[in-house]
Amino acid sequence: MAIPQVMLQMNRFDLRPGEMRLDTSVAFDAQLTFIGKIESPWTLQNGPKNLHAARETGHSGALVIAPAFRPALDGITPGAPLVLLYWMSEAPRDLLRQFPRHRDSATGTFNLRSPARPNPIGMGVVRVTGIDIAAGRVEIDAIDAIDGTPLIDIKPLARRADSLPD
Amino acid sequence: MAIPQVMLQMNRFDLRPGEMRLDTSVAFDAQLTFIGKIESPWTLQNGPKNLHAARETGHSGALVIAPAFRPALDGITPGAPLVLLYWMSEAPRDLLRQFPRHRDSATGTFNLRSPARPNPIGMGVVRVTGIDIAAGRVEIDAIDAIDGTPLIDIKPLARRADSLPD
Repeated sequence: MAIPQVMLQMNRFDLRPGEMRLDTSVAFDAQLTFIGKIESPWTLQNGPKNLHAARETGHSGALVIAPAFRPALDGITPGAPLVLLYWMSEAPRDLLRQFPRHRDSATGTFNLRSPARPNPIGMGVVRVTGIDIAAGRVEIDAIDAIDGTPLIDIKPLARRADSLPD
Repeated sequence: MAIPQVMLQMNRFDLRPGEMRLDTSVAFDAQLTFIGKIESPWTLQNGPKNLHAARETGHSGALVIAPAFRPALDGITPGAPLVLLYWMSEAPRDLLRQFPRHRDSATGTFNLRSPARPNPIGMGVVRVTGIDIAAGRVEIDAIDAIDGTPLIDIKPLARRADSLPD
Protein backbone atom coordinates (compact mmCIF):
# COMPACT_ATOMS: atom_id res chain seq x y z
CA MET A 1 0.00 0.00 0.00
CA ALA A 2 1.34 3.43 -0.92
CA ILE A 3 0.77 6.62 1.08
CA PRO A 4 -2.97 7.30 1.37
CA GLN A 5 -4.14 9.75 -1.26
CA VAL A 6 -7.83 9.58 -1.94
CA MET A 7 -10.72 8.27 0.11
CA LEU A 8 -12.67 5.52 -1.53
CA GLN A 9 -16.18 6.41 -2.52
CA MET A 10 -18.67 5.97 0.31
CA ASN A 11 -22.28 5.97 -0.68
CA ARG A 12 -24.05 3.41 1.46
CA PHE A 13 -24.82 4.92 4.82
CA ASP A 14 -26.73 2.21 6.64
CA LEU A 15 -24.75 -0.80 7.85
CA ARG A 16 -26.57 -4.10 8.45
CA PRO A 17 -25.64 -6.43 11.36
CA GLY A 18 -22.08 -7.72 11.04
CA GLU A 19 -21.19 -5.44 8.15
CA MET A 20 -17.88 -3.60 8.28
CA ARG A 21 -16.61 -0.53 6.52
CA LEU A 22 -13.04 0.28 5.48
CA ASP A 23 -12.05 2.97 7.99
CA THR A 24 -8.87 4.27 6.43
CA SER A 25 -8.16 6.21 3.31
CA VAL A 26 -6.63 4.09 0.57
CA ALA A 27 -4.31 5.00 -2.27
CA PHE A 28 -5.25 4.68 -5.90
CA ASP A 29 -2.51 2.73 -7.60
CA ALA A 30 -3.44 2.29 -11.25
CA GLN A 31 -5.80 3.74 -13.82
CA LEU A 32 -8.36 2.27 -16.16
CA THR A 33 -9.52 3.46 -19.53
CA PHE A 34 -13.02 2.60 -20.68
CA ILE A 35 -13.02 0.79 -24.05
CA GLY A 36 -16.77 1.10 -24.62
CA LYS A 37 -20.02 0.29 -22.90
CA ILE A 38 -22.59 -2.44 -22.41
CA GLU A 39 -26.14 -2.20 -23.75
CA SER A 40 -28.70 -4.18 -21.78
CA PRO A 41 -32.39 -4.05 -20.79
CA TRP A 42 -31.45 -3.57 -17.12
CA THR A 43 -31.53 -0.61 -14.77
CA LEU A 44 -30.29 -0.37 -11.17
CA GLN A 45 -33.88 -1.14 -10.15
CA ASN A 46 -34.76 -4.12 -12.36
CA GLY A 47 -31.48 -5.98 -12.93
CA PRO A 48 -31.33 -9.79 -12.62
CA LYS A 49 -29.53 -11.37 -9.67
CA ASN A 50 -26.73 -12.85 -11.76
CA LEU A 51 -25.74 -13.75 -15.32
CA HIS A 52 -27.44 -17.15 -15.16
CA ALA A 53 -30.69 -15.41 -14.20
CA ALA A 54 -30.18 -12.81 -16.96
CA ARG A 55 -29.73 -15.63 -19.49
CA GLU A 56 -32.97 -17.28 -18.34
CA THR A 57 -34.96 -14.11 -19.09
CA GLY A 58 -34.14 -14.53 -22.79
CA HIS A 59 -33.04 -10.88 -23.05
CA SER A 60 -29.81 -10.34 -24.98
CA GLY A 61 -27.27 -7.49 -24.79
CA ALA A 62 -24.57 -5.79 -26.81
CA LEU A 63 -21.11 -4.23 -26.51
CA VAL A 64 -20.50 -0.84 -28.12
CA ILE A 65 -16.77 -0.29 -28.56
CA ALA A 66 -15.23 3.19 -28.84
CA PRO A 67 -13.75 3.94 -32.29
CA ALA A 68 -10.10 3.95 -31.11
CA PHE A 69 -10.38 0.35 -29.84
CA ARG A 70 -12.36 -1.26 -32.69
CA PRO A 71 -9.29 -2.76 -34.45
CA ALA A 72 -8.74 -4.84 -31.31
CA LEU A 73 -11.98 -6.77 -32.09
CA ASP A 74 -10.40 -8.39 -35.17
CA GLY A 75 -10.74 -12.18 -35.15
CA ILE A 76 -13.81 -12.36 -32.88
CA THR A 77 -16.58 -14.29 -34.65
CA PRO A 78 -20.19 -15.31 -33.87
CA GLY A 79 -20.29 -18.25 -31.49
CA ALA A 80 -17.11 -17.23 -29.66
CA PRO A 81 -17.23 -17.42 -25.85
CA LEU A 82 -15.89 -14.23 -24.26
CA VAL A 83 -15.00 -13.07 -20.78
CA LEU A 84 -16.12 -9.47 -20.19
CA LEU A 85 -14.77 -7.22 -17.47
CA TYR A 86 -16.79 -4.09 -16.69
CA TRP A 87 -16.81 -1.24 -14.20
CA MET A 88 -19.74 -1.07 -11.77
CA SER A 89 -19.40 2.64 -11.13
CA GLU A 90 -22.52 2.89 -8.95
CA ALA A 91 -21.23 0.47 -6.31
CA PRO A 92 -19.80 1.57 -2.94
CA ARG A 93 -16.12 0.63 -2.58
CA ASP A 94 -15.71 0.67 1.18
CA LEU A 95 -17.59 -2.41 2.40
CA LEU A 96 -15.27 -5.11 3.82
CA ARG A 97 -18.03 -7.31 5.25
CA GLN A 98 -21.56 -7.41 3.87
CA PHE A 99 -24.92 -8.90 4.81
CA PRO A 100 -26.72 -9.58 1.51
CA ARG A 101 -30.47 -10.10 1.74
CA HIS A 102 -30.21 -13.68 0.44
CA ARG A 103 -27.82 -14.78 3.23
CA ASP A 104 -28.21 -15.59 6.93
CA SER A 105 -25.35 -13.41 8.19
CA ALA A 106 -22.58 -11.07 7.15
CA THR A 107 -19.46 -12.37 5.39
CA GLY A 108 -16.32 -10.99 3.75
CA THR A 109 -16.63 -9.01 0.53
CA PHE A 110 -14.10 -11.30 -1.19
CA ASN A 111 -16.41 -14.21 -0.35
CA LEU A 112 -19.30 -12.50 -2.20
CA ARG A 113 -20.11 -11.56 -5.78
CA SER A 114 -21.71 -8.28 -4.64
CA PRO A 115 -20.94 -5.27 -6.89
CA ALA A 116 -19.79 -3.46 -3.72
CA ARG A 117 -16.04 -4.19 -3.51
CA PRO A 118 -12.77 -2.22 -3.33
CA ASN A 119 -12.41 -2.39 -7.11
CA PRO A 120 -15.96 -2.74 -8.49
CA ILE A 121 -15.09 -4.89 -11.52
CA GLY A 122 -17.82 -7.18 -12.79
CA MET A 123 -17.19 -10.30 -14.82
CA GLY A 124 -19.39 -12.15 -17.29
CA VAL A 125 -18.88 -15.18 -19.55
CA VAL A 126 -20.99 -14.61 -22.65
CA ARG A 127 -21.40 -15.86 -26.20
CA VAL A 128 -21.09 -13.66 -29.31
CA THR A 129 -24.24 -13.79 -31.44
CA GLY A 130 -23.20 -11.18 -34.02
CA ILE A 131 -20.39 -8.70 -34.69
CA ASP A 132 -19.88 -5.57 -36.83
CA ILE A 133 -16.29 -4.48 -36.26
CA ALA A 134 -16.53 -1.29 -38.35
CA ALA A 135 -19.51 -0.18 -36.26
CA GLY A 136 -17.84 -1.37 -33.04
CA ARG A 137 -20.86 -3.48 -32.15
CA VAL A 138 -20.81 -6.99 -30.65
CA GLU A 139 -24.14 -8.73 -29.96
CA ILE A 140 -24.06 -11.11 -26.98
CA ASP A 141 -26.48 -13.73 -25.68
CA ALA A 142 -27.04 -12.19 -22.23
CA ILE A 143 -25.50 -9.94 -19.57
CA ASP A 144 -26.51 -8.92 -16.07
CA ALA A 145 -24.84 -5.48 -16.10
CA ILE A 146 -27.05 -2.39 -16.15
CA ASP A 147 -27.45 -0.47 -19.40
CA GLY A 148 -24.54 1.89 -20.06
CA THR A 149 -22.03 0.07 -17.83
CA PRO A 150 -18.45 0.97 -18.91
CA LEU A 151 -16.53 -1.93 -20.42
CA ILE A 152 -12.85 -2.38 -19.51
CA ASP A 153 -11.75 -5.64 -21.15
CA ILE A 154 -12.80 -8.41 -23.54
CA LYS A 155 -10.93 -11.74 -23.47
CA PRO A 156 -11.51 -14.98 -25.35
CA LEU A 157 -12.58 -17.70 -22.90
CA ALA A 158 -9.79 -20.28 -22.52
CA ARG A 159 -11.70 -23.36 -21.46
CA ARG A 160 -8.78 -25.28 -19.97
CA ALA A 161 -6.93 -22.36 -18.37
CA ASP A 162 -10.15 -20.78 -17.03
CA SER A 163 -11.32 -23.82 -15.09
CA LEU A 164 -10.13 -26.10 -12.33
CA PRO A 165 -8.99 -29.66 -13.07
CA ASP A 166 -12.29 -31.11 -11.81
CA MET B 1 -14.56 8.42 -24.40
CA ALA B 2 -13.78 11.56 -22.45
CA ILE B 3 -11.31 14.27 -23.53
CA PRO B 4 -7.82 12.77 -23.92
CA GLN B 5 -5.71 13.34 -20.83
CA VAL B 6 -2.84 10.93 -20.54
CA MET B 7 -1.02 8.85 -23.12
CA LEU B 8 -1.13 5.14 -22.47
CA GLN B 9 2.16 3.55 -21.58
CA MET B 10 4.19 2.58 -24.64
CA ASN B 11 7.07 0.26 -24.03
CA ARG B 12 7.22 -2.12 -26.93
CA PHE B 13 8.97 -0.44 -29.82
CA ASP B 14 9.16 -3.13 -32.49
CA LEU B 15 5.94 -4.01 -34.29
CA ARG B 16 5.63 -7.43 -35.94
CA PRO B 17 3.79 -7.90 -39.28
CA GLY B 18 0.11 -6.97 -39.01
CA GLU B 19 0.43 -5.51 -35.53
CA MET B 20 -1.22 -2.16 -34.85
CA ARG B 21 -0.68 0.44 -32.19
CA LEU B 22 -3.23 2.78 -30.67
CA ASP B 23 -2.28 6.13 -32.22
CA THR B 24 -4.28 8.52 -30.07
CA SER B 25 -4.05 9.51 -26.48
CA VAL B 26 -6.76 8.00 -24.33
CA ALA B 27 -8.41 9.25 -21.17
CA PHE B 28 -8.14 7.46 -17.87
CA ASP B 29 -11.63 7.03 -16.54
CA ALA B 30 -11.45 5.14 -13.25
CA GLN B 31 -8.92 4.24 -10.59
CA LEU B 32 -7.85 0.99 -8.99
CA THR B 33 -6.52 0.34 -5.52
CA PHE B 34 -4.24 -2.65 -4.98
CA ILE B 35 -5.57 -4.98 -2.27
CA GLY B 36 -2.37 -7.03 -1.97
CA LYS B 37 -0.02 -9.02 -4.15
CA ILE B 38 0.58 -12.47 -5.60
CA GLU B 39 3.49 -14.66 -4.56
CA SER B 40 4.66 -17.11 -7.23
CA PRO B 41 7.83 -18.83 -8.46
CA TRP B 42 7.65 -16.91 -11.76
CA THR B 43 9.61 -13.99 -13.19
CA LEU B 44 9.04 -12.10 -16.45
CA GLN B 45 11.64 -14.45 -17.97
CA ASN B 46 10.47 -17.88 -16.76
CA GLY B 47 6.67 -17.60 -16.45
CA PRO B 48 4.44 -20.41 -17.79
CA LYS B 49 2.33 -19.79 -20.88
CA ASN B 50 -0.99 -19.93 -19.03
CA LEU B 51 -2.63 -21.06 -15.80
CA HIS B 52 -3.15 -24.61 -17.06
CA ALA B 53 0.59 -24.83 -17.77
CA ALA B 54 1.39 -23.31 -14.35
CA ARG B 55 -0.80 -25.94 -12.68
CA GLU B 56 1.02 -28.73 -14.54
CA THR B 57 4.38 -27.61 -13.12
CA GLY B 58 3.13 -28.49 -9.62
CA HIS B 59 4.29 -25.12 -8.25
CA SER B 60 1.78 -23.40 -5.98
CA GLY B 61 1.34 -19.71 -5.12
CA ALA B 62 -0.10 -17.41 -2.49
CA LEU B 63 -2.01 -14.16 -2.03
CA VAL B 64 -0.74 -11.62 0.49
CA ILE B 65 -3.52 -9.20 1.40
CA ALA B 66 -2.82 -5.70 2.76
CA PRO B 67 -3.92 -5.24 6.42
CA ALA B 68 -6.79 -2.84 5.62
CA PHE B 69 -8.48 -5.44 3.38
CA ARG B 70 -8.04 -8.60 5.49
CA PRO B 71 -11.56 -8.53 7.03
CA ALA B 72 -12.91 -8.95 3.48
CA LEU B 73 -11.44 -12.50 3.41
CA ASP B 74 -13.90 -13.72 6.03
CA GLY B 75 -15.76 -16.85 4.94
CA ILE B 76 -13.16 -18.09 2.45
CA THR B 77 -12.14 -21.65 3.34
CA PRO B 78 -9.70 -24.28 2.01
CA GLY B 79 -11.08 -25.95 -1.09
CA ALA B 80 -12.94 -22.85 -2.28
CA PRO B 81 -12.60 -22.01 -5.99
CA LEU B 82 -11.76 -18.33 -6.50
CA VAL B 83 -11.52 -15.96 -9.43
CA LEU B 84 -8.51 -13.64 -9.09
CA LEU B 85 -8.09 -10.37 -10.94
CA TYR B 86 -4.60 -8.87 -11.00
CA TRP B 87 -2.75 -5.98 -12.60
CA MET B 88 -0.04 -6.84 -15.13
CA SER B 89 1.84 -3.59 -14.69
CA GLU B 90 4.74 -4.55 -16.98
CA ALA B 91 2.54 -4.98 -20.06
CA PRO B 92 2.29 -2.37 -22.85
CA ARG B 93 -1.22 -0.93 -23.12
CA ASP B 94 -1.20 0.41 -26.66
CA LEU B 95 -1.31 -2.73 -28.85
CA LEU B 96 -4.59 -3.10 -30.77
CA ARG B 97 -3.47 -5.96 -33.01
CA GLN B 98 -0.75 -8.44 -32.02
CA PHE B 99 1.24 -11.24 -33.65
CA PRO B 100 2.04 -13.70 -30.83
CA ARG B 101 4.84 -16.16 -31.55
CA HIS B 102 2.49 -19.14 -31.27
CA ARG B 103 0.14 -17.87 -34.01
CA ASP B 104 0.32 -17.68 -37.82
CA SER B 105 -0.67 -14.05 -38.16
CA ALA B 106 -1.71 -10.94 -36.27
CA THR B 107 -5.15 -10.67 -34.67
CA GLY B 108 -7.08 -8.28 -32.43
CA THR B 109 -5.98 -7.81 -28.83
CA PHE B 110 -9.52 -8.63 -27.60
CA ASN B 111 -9.20 -11.98 -29.42
CA LEU B 112 -6.03 -12.80 -27.43
CA ARG B 113 -5.14 -13.54 -23.80
CA SER B 114 -1.87 -11.57 -24.13
CA PRO B 115 -1.00 -9.43 -21.07
CA ALA B 116 -0.65 -6.49 -23.50
CA ARG B 117 -4.10 -4.87 -23.58
CA PRO B 118 -5.66 -1.44 -22.92
CA ASN B 119 -6.37 -2.42 -19.30
CA PRO B 120 -3.79 -5.08 -18.39
CA ILE B 121 -5.99 -7.10 -16.03
CA GLY B 122 -5.15 -10.78 -15.69
CA MET B 123 -7.63 -13.41 -14.55
CA GLY B 124 -7.10 -16.77 -12.92
CA VAL B 125 -9.44 -19.46 -11.55
CA VAL B 126 -7.65 -21.08 -8.61
CA ARG B 127 -8.35 -23.26 -5.60
CA VAL B 128 -7.63 -22.24 -1.99
CA THR B 129 -5.31 -24.72 -0.26
CA GLY B 130 -4.91 -22.81 3.02
CA ILE B 131 -5.86 -19.48 4.60
CA ASP B 132 -4.70 -17.37 7.57
CA ILE B 133 -6.97 -14.32 7.63
CA ALA B 134 -5.15 -12.55 10.50
CA ALA B 135 -1.89 -12.81 8.55
CA GLY B 136 -3.64 -11.90 5.29
CA ARG B 137 -2.30 -15.00 3.59
CA VAL B 138 -4.19 -17.28 1.17
CA GLU B 139 -2.40 -20.32 -0.27
CA ILE B 140 -3.54 -21.29 -3.78
CA ASP B 141 -2.92 -24.35 -5.95
CA ALA B 142 -1.29 -22.51 -8.87
CA ILE B 143 -1.05 -19.14 -10.64
CA ASP B 144 0.68 -17.96 -13.82
CA ALA B 145 1.25 -14.33 -12.68
CA ILE B 146 4.81 -13.22 -11.95
CA ASP B 147 5.93 -12.88 -8.34
CA GLY B 148 4.84 -9.55 -6.81
CA THR B 149 1.95 -8.93 -9.21
CA PRO B 150 -0.56 -6.52 -7.62
CA LEU B 151 -3.92 -8.08 -6.81
CA ILE B 152 -7.11 -6.10 -7.48
CA ASP B 153 -10.00 -8.45 -6.72
CA ILE B 154 -10.93 -11.87 -5.31
CA LYS B 155 -14.34 -13.36 -6.12
CA PRO B 156 -15.86 -16.73 -5.28
CA LEU B 157 -16.31 -18.76 -8.48
CA ALA B 158 -20.02 -19.08 -9.32
CA ARG B 159 -20.11 -22.26 -11.35
CA ARG B 160 -23.45 -21.68 -13.04
CA ALA B 161 -23.18 -17.91 -13.59
CA ASP B 162 -19.54 -18.13 -14.73
CA SER B 163 -20.13 -20.62 -17.53
CA LEU B 164 -22.14 -20.94 -20.70
CA PRO B 165 -25.18 -23.25 -20.88
CA ASP B 166 -23.20 -25.90 -22.81
